[in-house]
Amino acid sequence: MKNEEVMKIAKKRGFLWSSFEIYSGVAGFFDYGPLGAILKDNIMKKWRDYYIVREGFYEIESPTIMPEEVLKASGHVDHFNDPMTECKDCLDVYRADHLIKDAIGEEVEGLDNNELSAIFSENQIRCPRCGGHLTHIWSYNLMFQTLIGAKGKKTGYLRPETAQGIFIPFKRLLRFFRGKLPFGVVQLGKAYRNEISPRQGVIRLREFTQAEAEIFVDPLKKTHPHFNEVARKVLTLFPSNIQESDKEPLELTAREAVDKGIVNSEMLTYQLCLAIQFMEDLGIPKKVIRFRQHLSTEMAHYAIDCWDVEVYTDLYGWIEVIGIADRTDFDLKSHSQHSNEDLRVYIEYPEPRTVIKLMIKPDMKKLGPLFKVDAPKIIETLKDINVSQIKQAFQKNGHFSLEINGEIFKITPDLVDLQEVKETLRGEKIFPHVIEPSYGIDRILYSVLLHGFVQDDERTILQLPADVAPVGIYVFPLVNKKELNEIAHKIQNDLRDRNIITEYDVSGTIGRRYARSDEIGVPFAITIDHKTLEDSSVTIRNRDNQEQVRVALSNLYLTLEKLLNGELKFEEMKS
Amino acid sequence: MKNEEVMKIAKKRGFLWSSFEIYSGVAGFFDYGPLGAILKDNIMKKWRDYYIVREGFYEIESPTIMPEEVLKASGHVDHFNDPMTECKDCLDVYRADHLIKDAIGEEVEGLDNNELSAIFSENQIRCPRCGGHLTHIWSYNLMFQTLIGAKGKKTGYLRPETAQGIFIPFKRLLRFFRGKLPFGVVQLGKAYRNEISPRQGVIRLREFTQAEAEIFVDPLKKTHPHFNEVARKVLTLFPSNIQESDKEPLELTAREAVDKGIVNSEMLTYQLCLAIQFMEDLGIPKKVIRFRQHLSTEMAHYAIDCWDVEVYTDLYGWIEVIGIADRTDFDLKSHSQHSNEDLRVYIEYPEPRTVIKLMIKPDMKKLGPLFKVDAPKIIETLKDINVSQIKQAFQKNGHFSLEINGEIFKITPDLVDLQEVKETLRGEKIFPHVIEPSYGIDRILYSVLLHGFVQDDERTILQLPADVAPVGIYVFPLVNKKELNEIAHKIQNDLRDRNIITEYDVSGTIGRRYARSDEIGVPFAITIDHKTLEDSSVTIRNRDNQEQVRVALSNLYLTLEKLLNGELKFEEMKS
Repeated sequence: MKNEEVMKIAKKRGFLWSSFEIYSGVAGFFDYGPLGAILKDNIMKKWRDYYIVREGFYEIESPTIMPEEVLKASGHVDHFNDPMTECKDCLDVYRADHLIKDAIGEEVEGLDNNELSAIFSENQIRCPRCGGHLTHIWSYNLMFQTLIGAKGKKTGYLRPETAQGIFIPFKRLLRFFRGKLPFGVVQLGKAYRNEISPRQGVIRLREFTQAEAEIFVDPLKKTHPHFNEVARKVLTLFPSNIQESDKEPLELTAREAVDKGIVNSEMLTYQLCLAIQFMEDLGIPKKVIRFRQHLSTEMAHYAIDCWDVEVYTDLYGWIEVIGIADRTDFDLKSHSQHSNEDLRVYIEYPEPRTVIKLMIKPDMKKLGPLFKVDAPKIIETLKDINVSQIKQAFQKNGHFSLEINGEIFKITPDLVDLQEVKETLRGEKIFPHVIEPSYGIDRILYSVLLHGFVQDDERTILQLPADVAPVGIYVFPLVNKKELNEIAHKIQNDLRDRNIITEYDVSGTIGRRYARSDEIGVPFAITIDHKTLEDSSVTIRNRDNQEQVRVALSNLYLTLEKLLNGELKFEEMKS
Repeated sequence: MKNEEVMKIAKKRGFLWSSFEIYSGVAGFFDYGPLGAILKDNIMKKWRDYYIVREGFYEIESPTIMPEEVLKASGHVDHFNDPMTECKDCLDVYRADHLIKDAIGEEVEGLDNNELSAIFSENQIRCPRCGGHLTHIWSYNLMFQTLIGAKGKKTGYLRPETAQGIFIPFKRLLRFFRGKLPFGVVQLGKAYRNEISPRQGVIRLREFTQAEAEIFVDPLKKTHPHFNEVARKVLTLFPSNIQESDKEPLELTAREAVDKGIVNSEMLTYQLCLAIQFMEDLGIPKKVIRFRQHLSTEMAHYAIDCWDVEVYTDLYGWIEVIGIADRTDFDLKSHSQHSNEDLRVYIEYPEPRTVIKLMIKPDMKKLGPLFKVDAPKIIETLKDINVSQIKQAFQKNGHFSLEINGEIFKITPDLVDLQEVKETLRGEKIFPHVIEPSYGIDRILYSVLLHGFVQDDERTILQLPADVAPVGIYVFPLVNKKELNEIAHKIQNDLRDRNIITEYDVSGTIGRRYARSDEIGVPFAITIDHKTLEDSSVTIRNRDNQEQVRVALSNLYLTLEKLLNGELKFEEMKS
């Protein structure tokens, strides 16, 4: 199994290891070791290149602890649940939907607890560990709960997604963007799911890193100004109806996906294109990537269309690494209602609109003598009443009965003047819709390791792209000799000053050292040998094809910088 | 108050705002807005330049949730407490030490709850809010608690410091560094303190960002190979004895601080020097920075020497922004004991050492006939006994009584041969000591804003260093005209491609626009005017002195890059 080999190297060489190992570990938590942390950082740098530099979005950072009100409004307190059951004998706990899948091979996401219970009894599903009877199924909330402060002990949760931290300060963000749609805000950081019993290594973490962008758009303008740049990109799409009829995924261009109405909008499709480009840039081959649309039963409570970017893995099958959703105005609307803050945006119409408005004008001369001391409050109250209601009453009953504190006043048409007035509207306030690409950085990193891993009888290589590999350059003196070591150290220091991460290795044969370097994916190795002392040149060795070229020291740093950032291809150097 | 002015701009322009504002906020939580997040990122980048690129340390990333065992071993479950009291009438809660400070002006850190209670009754301290009686004082643990998983519900805490995440995988890290001391490992990330009732804005956060380095050293080698590079740096030191005798801080060079024994070691002093250099690089003037040594009463349970880097603020007085401690072997030793894992390091002696060892050799020929079937187990048991114990028994009693499962066997000197043997030892296993600089990123960012803020009758400027300022370049077309806007947009896009963050502003007078730009600390503004159309040149304006120079477009990007990274000074351009 490739997974096993990769995780062995990841552990041994300092990419990833289970957290708290010396205390026997806790499922669902992983450490990034020295090389893993750099790799993760490189992936996040590339993500920021895409979404901040290229798309022009801004990043913010909000707390990981959130008070209950926020997550009540977002729906997570009520809906962020997994169905759970427990063995009455051995007391082991399970996700009910996972037990069904293991027992009868059926996906049951979206069914309620009663429906799941029915399947349990129909199929006589028992505890897979001891065969014992299982309890009834209940909803288990997946958020980590805590208490904030010493006074009052306010309930708080660790955020289940970074997105909510962007919705809450929406008014401030809108002001930063000078009140204009569309704009994008991103957040990279920790999110948490208190999984019932995670058993899938780094794939199912209780604490993980998300990179999310929330793009606020006019609901009537889900086209994208740069769609043409991606329109011809071919996507492997697996729409919900195709899944339901057990057919194969479709190969369509982005343009076709929009035109055939398979993906909800240009905006959403544009995000699909960015995602696949991003994954390919990380060295993950297109053939192991597909876009799977959520079935209506599994769609989150806030979304109208949602596509998972899935990557194929030998151990876990297809896994979701990115989710791309149209969240509509669900979140802003709900936070508006719960907080009593107006989170709408004023949108100017392309052309001013003229509307006919009905106005009421009380006839003071008649109302005064008729109602005496009550006249002022009658006039005041009439202002707040919908005029068309009064007009209808006149037409139907010949008068309108105005109630003030239980007292009825009869208003006849002669007492008021109804006028139609033209009004010009320049715009209106609306809730923006939200397009959200949500990247799971840990799963992406796992995919990068898994699909970068190449092993044959002779070599084990991590074929990471040069700008993603944690160590850029391995520096080897050919033999352990003072003159060579001095040059090697100088080169290492100079490269470090240029922000290039290097390793220095002088122990063992050169073959052993190349092998150690290949195993952690170092794209280029420099060897300092006796010829270096004569003509100030060194060899650069290319990881993937093991070819070598000789380069003058005077030209070395610029060459390496270009090789690492992709400006220069190794093949071009040989001529 | 400068604090107030700075926080007003920070809020208005998108640096910092209270979290969850629309839900009335929760004390102790802040959001970084679009500009604040970039500023924070720039500060962390610089930190990584210091500790990763320059010092050669490696970064790791471990979970923010930790199981109880870890924090039991680290001492946090038992010792990470604040003394707390509650008003019996209004039920408001307080930190007891803060109440004493407010009431009688005395610092009482380190006193136990009984001592604090005594001070309360002596001084008849009451609730500052309503004058009510206060309850007894109890210890309130400052960690956020949660439960991990659905089964067993394991107690977990949000980490109070990132450091523990480095100690736990120490064995794996040691292997990564090929078993050799010294080495440094860093972590940047969230840490948490569930403050009783934080009332100091961004200075006392319940969720904050730390950047910590744990440097593992041989306890006998606390010298530093590059100490000479910093030896002449002058430090403002406020040692504990000087504080206790109410004298003024000392001005000493790093070398003097070590030679006079004021700071515990070269290693520790070297870290003090890095810290002050770092703060000066962020634009914080040296005169508002001092190093205050912890009093013995306030020293953390793990440290033998600890210095706070303090920055002066108008509202809060001197605040701690960095702590630099010698944690000794406290953590590794304690985790070793609690986890039963050997966290020691094998240290090779500079020279092999010869030791005399006493060996015991049983005389088989005599033991066999004498003890018959018991002989084998007697021989086996003798191996495990300290030989000097046997020798002493011979000298004192003429024999040694060997007990095996309650039975006593009398061993006389004639039955065994005691020999002195020379043995050569090449090294031994030891617990490394840990030197720890711990940076509070949020407080540093606050200090950067506060001390960068300059206001006079005419202007409000945030004088941030060019490589720290969140927006590098402001791009202004002089007037809102299509030809000028087009050039301005092109410049903005080109700069974005070079990873330079820009803002574009075309609204209002040029003066208003400069003012908006100065307020968020943009170091340089480019103006595109009519002359640009004629000769392809633009003006660059320097924020701090408002001077302008004209630069050819062909030379613009390189010039700006150099101005921003400090390779070129603005003054040099005028000649």
